Amino acid sequence: MTSKDWQKLCAERKEKQLQSIPKEWLIETPPESQANVLDVPKTCGLLTERELEITNTTDVDTLLGKLATSQWSAVEVTTAFYKRAIVAQQVTNCLTEIFIEKALARAKEVDEYLQQTGKTIGPLHGLPISLKDQFCIKGMDTIMGYAGWINKPAKKDCVLVEILYDVGAIPFVRTNVPQTLLWGETYNHVFGQTTNPINRYMTPGGSSGGEGALVAMRGSPLGVGTDIGGSVRIPSAFCGLYGFRPSYERLPYQGAVNAQVGQESISSVLGPMTNAPSGVRRFTKAIIDAKPWNRDPLAVRKPWNGREYELEEHGHGLGMCIAIMWDNDVVKPHPPLIRAMEITKAALEAAGHKVIDWIPHRHMEIYVNTERIFAADGGHDYRTDCELSGEPLIQTMSPTEDAHEYALDQPLAKTVIGKPVLISAYDLWQLHREKRELRKSFLDYWEATKATTETGRPVDAIISPVAAYTACPHGCNSDAFYTTLCNSLDLTTYTFPVTFADKELDKKAPPHEFRNHEDEAIYHLYDPELFHGLPVCLQLTGRTLEEEGVIGMTEVVDRALKAYKSM
Amino acid sequence: MTSKDWQKLCAERKEKQLQSIPKEWLIETPPESQANVLDVPKTCGLLTERELEITNTTDVDTLLGKLATSQWSAVEVTTAFYKRAIVAQQVTNCLTEIFIEKALARAKEVDEYLQQTGKTIGPLHGLPISLKDQFCIKGMDTIMGYAGWINKPAKKDCVLVEILYDVGAIPFVRTNVPQTLLWGETYNHVFGQTTNPINRYMTPGGSSGGEGALVAMRGSPLGVGTDIGGSVRIPSAFCGLYGFRPSYERLPYQGAVNAQVGQESISSVLGPMTNAPSGVRRFTKAIIDAKPWNRDPLAVRKPWNGREYELEEHGHGLGMCIAIMWDNDVVKPHPPLIRAMEITKAALEAAGHKVIDWIPHRHMEIYVNTERIFAADGGHDYRTDCELSGEPLIQTMSPTEDAHEYALDQPLAKTVIGKPVLISAYDLWQLHREKRELRKSFLDYWEATKATTETGRPVDAIISPVAAYTACPHGCNSDAFYTTLCNSLDLTTYTFPVTFADKELDKKAPPHEFRNHEDEAIYHLYDPELFHGLPVCLQLTGRTLEEEGVIGMTEVVDRALKAYKSM
Repeated sequence: MTSKDWQKLCAERKEKQLQSIPKEWLIETPPESQANVLDVPKTCGLLTERELEITNTTDVDTLLGKLATSQWSAVEVTTAFYKRAIVAQQVTNCLTEIFIEKALARAKEVDEYLQQTGKTIGPLHGLPISLKDQFCIKGMDTIMGYAGWINKPAKKDCVLVEILYDVGAIPFVRTNVPQTLLWGETYNHVFGQTTNPINRYMTPGGSSGGEGALVAMRGSPLGVGTDIGGSVRIPSAFCGLYGFRPSYERLPYQGAVNAQVGQESISSVLGPMTNAPSGVRRFTKAIIDAKPWNRDPLAVRKPWNGREYELEEHGHGLGMCIAIMWDNDVVKPHPPLIRAMEITKAALEAAGHKVIDWIPHRHMEIYVNTERIFAADGGHDYRTDCELSGEPLIQTMSPTEDAHEYALDQPLAKTVIGKPVLISAYDLWQLHREKRELRKSFLDYWEATKATTETGRPVDAIISPVAAYTACPHGCNSDAFYTTLCNSLDLTTYTFPVTFADKELDKKAPPHEFRNHEDEAIYHLYDPELFHGLPVCLQLTGRTLEEEGVIGMTEVVDRALKAYKSM
Repeated sequence: MTSKDWQKLCAERKEKQLQSIPKEWLIETPPESQANVLDVPKTCGLLTERELEITNTTDVDTLLGKLATSQWSAVEVTTAFYKRAIVAQQVTNCLTEIFIEKALARAKEVDEYLQQTGKTIGPLHGLPISLKDQFCIKGMDTIMGYAGWINKPAKKDCVLVEILYDVGAIPFVRTNVPQTLLWGETYNHVFGQTTNPINRYMTPGGSSGGEGALVAMRGSPLGVGTDIGGSVRIPSAFCGLYGFRPSYERLPYQGAVNAQVGQESISSVLGPMTNAPSGVRRFTKAIIDAKPWNRDPLAVRKPWNGREYELEEHGHGLGMCIAIMWDNDVVKPHPPLIRAMEITKAALEAAGHKVIDWIPHRHMEIYVNTERIFAADGGHDYRTDCELSGEPLIQTMSPTEDAHEYALDQPLAKTVIGKPVLISAYDLWQLHREKRELRKSFLDYWEATKATTETGRPVDAIISPVAAYTACPHGCNSDAFYTTLCNSLDLTTYTFPVTFADKELDKKAPPHEFRNHEDEAIYHLYDPELFHGLPVCLQLTGRTLEEEGVIGMTEVVDRALKAYKSM
């Protein structure tokens, strides 16, 4: 294809997307200069009062309860969220596939089933669910940010979608991603750039950034993202959401498209993003209860373990010892993050837990090992996908001329490992050997904390920033140093909101001794005025395949925070 | 090193091994021409009546019961098995490391603990356990068949050994392996060739062949082998044992040495080999109950699931539908194997189960994909280990001049994939992509059997040969076609004894249309006279991470066989 061809292809696809929106759902959009658009669904006039009530219901348990008792029909819930999603699309550009007819037909089926049988279809009966642009739905494209993937409809549903249908859910939109998936922001040549609804000058993060923006707009009660270096957690943190990264293969990835297929050293995982913890728990349990291992040969045959969720191994959630990693010694967190950790510490102590410091352990070595593995194919995978259409490989997530002065085109990953070079299978095995040693070292280090916790156990969990900053200007998100650790070590991790950046409380700190060029750039990036009002989230990290326990512990922390704030 | 150097090193190490045997434990060995040496422990006069009684107790539950109630002390049990192991060594050459003093000191500790506290140390209290020459014990070499690994004592115990000590077991010998571990027989330059005690003209199989010979001699109540292509199951089958291959990382491999470290596409696993099913269950449950995931970051956090063991998902073990794979369409099984399957079918039907045929599914494709992955380093791993000492890479498992006429020096793996060539990380990822597709295809195929079972479930398990033959002459074991399937697909598999080859019952079949040169060679290899009396085992295959269920189902099959034979 010539350059013109791929551009034409993208433009046509974008136009087709616009055409899929009913004319009457088009709103008068606010001026570009309006940063915060969270209020638009309410002010634009498209949604009825009842639709606003439905979509403002962030608690998934409540939504499911009303659906199961026919107080709200699946058709009206789906319609309400669909309208709000279309509003979100018009102000943040968060969607890819829009398929209103199919979703409403499904909602109608769901309603009829309940009417006819008096029973729900399953544990997610009638719940609209948005999906990152990787989860294939039969007959529909899954473009995943590549022009070359346009007009290649999926032959079948991926396993996640199969299960969602089986448990009564209603997949209803798909959401935007960056080209290659390997960025912590969201921009590609087909669908363009997604912005953060809390402040559109900012990125919603990525790679599940479309989900982040959509769920923050309450255009979806629950979205499914994927995470190989932070791609669920970064947009969750940047958009003020609950976001969950389970361990490799706990939830079924089979049949979804992906970057670097066959890279099995550090696996991408899928996880829920939502406005309240009930969504994370309900979704995760529903998928596991559906026995995904009978459809995905890699899915771990581990039934949902209620005793782990009840925190049997963590003192039943009472008097736990939680460690806080205030700084990973690679990049220093911005003041709002430090304050969020202080709030969390105080809240945990007020709830009777002990809080100790987490001293980072071989953090940079682990990061470098992982980046080397990601680069092992020398970029062959994404080059091949770009070559399909001739589109160029994107070099920045801030393609406009007014990029922020700290927009980085040379993330530390590149400076650490250099240009990706294709290595041999034997050399990859040596990286695995090193990785295994690092994982063992980290596990032993964690186990050794038993000596200091006074609970008779090692530290129950680690709380840390998700990134050194809150949502930041487009093009500036270079930091996966806090998230990648959990992907490298396959630690279950859960992001939760704590507070909002506040220019009065979060003054700029005096410069510290910079450890590297990112650390320096990140320091300078902070501007209390610019970041004011953005949500501040943290993440709680537990052990590998400890999904139930990490969900349980994060709920304990979340309740402690809510109690502390209401004191 | 010069050629002389590595030979000298090996000779010295072998001499050191001999010196580690107390003079009074040396027996008058039978002539080389005596094929079956199973009776030697009884006839040689070294073991007392009580020691014979102890070592003839194949049921591990019984042994543990007597130990827990001080009817037998750990010292006397360990002494008895040690003496019998040393007899086994003198007639089959099955051992590598011999450390009587250390084992007896440990046994003394175990006894004292029970005397002083009235409690057992743990669920394997006092049980001597033999270990394949991969499981490191602090201060001791782990030679794993390489001259270059001599005189490199381990700095610490591997995780399995740590746990064995914690649960009260007594590691007491280590056992022989082939150079590279990548053979289904047992011969290396350091310790030489291990023979099959049922017929020393035959191989005990491999790579856990030392364990096979030792446990068959009842020189150990339970041994631990490893399996990446059949290395637990082949020696179990050739020696008439129960042998268990769990799924990747269900049991902790951390800290053990291995071939091709870092090859994580198809993982080697460890599993028990024993004379009665109680050993498999007790060992597996004891290790899982010790929460190996707190010591091995790769060990799967899945507690022992009693409901799976009780076969809740398999009709509680009643009226199951089992499929038999009579032939994998690659190599046709010898007559004793066919008869063993017929016996099993009849026994299962007599016990109220349904038996249907398993039609092989993409068997050769799966095999080739796996062999390509194993060869992805172009042999770099084993060449490097040979170069340490200058020893040559072994080309045959039958190094003597009187090799059997069907000894193969060109196994099908080589003819299928050619000489191993180092491939790129990207090409390895493409093999993973193909592997994932094959696994999905096989899983869907299995699930689809639901239509024919009449149980409302897919086939509960598949029973098949472990190899196309029983134990065979040294150098003739070319067949990993029945075992590799389970490694490729990570299916839990359990080998169990059925009968013995019988020259009257197992006549040579007329030639069939040969599918490949192995199939032809294997056909010609069969000679009713030569194979008479050898044990015939089969394997039962369940799902990935279904250890509890596969143990439960194999116990059902085993009981059905025993009941049928006593009818």
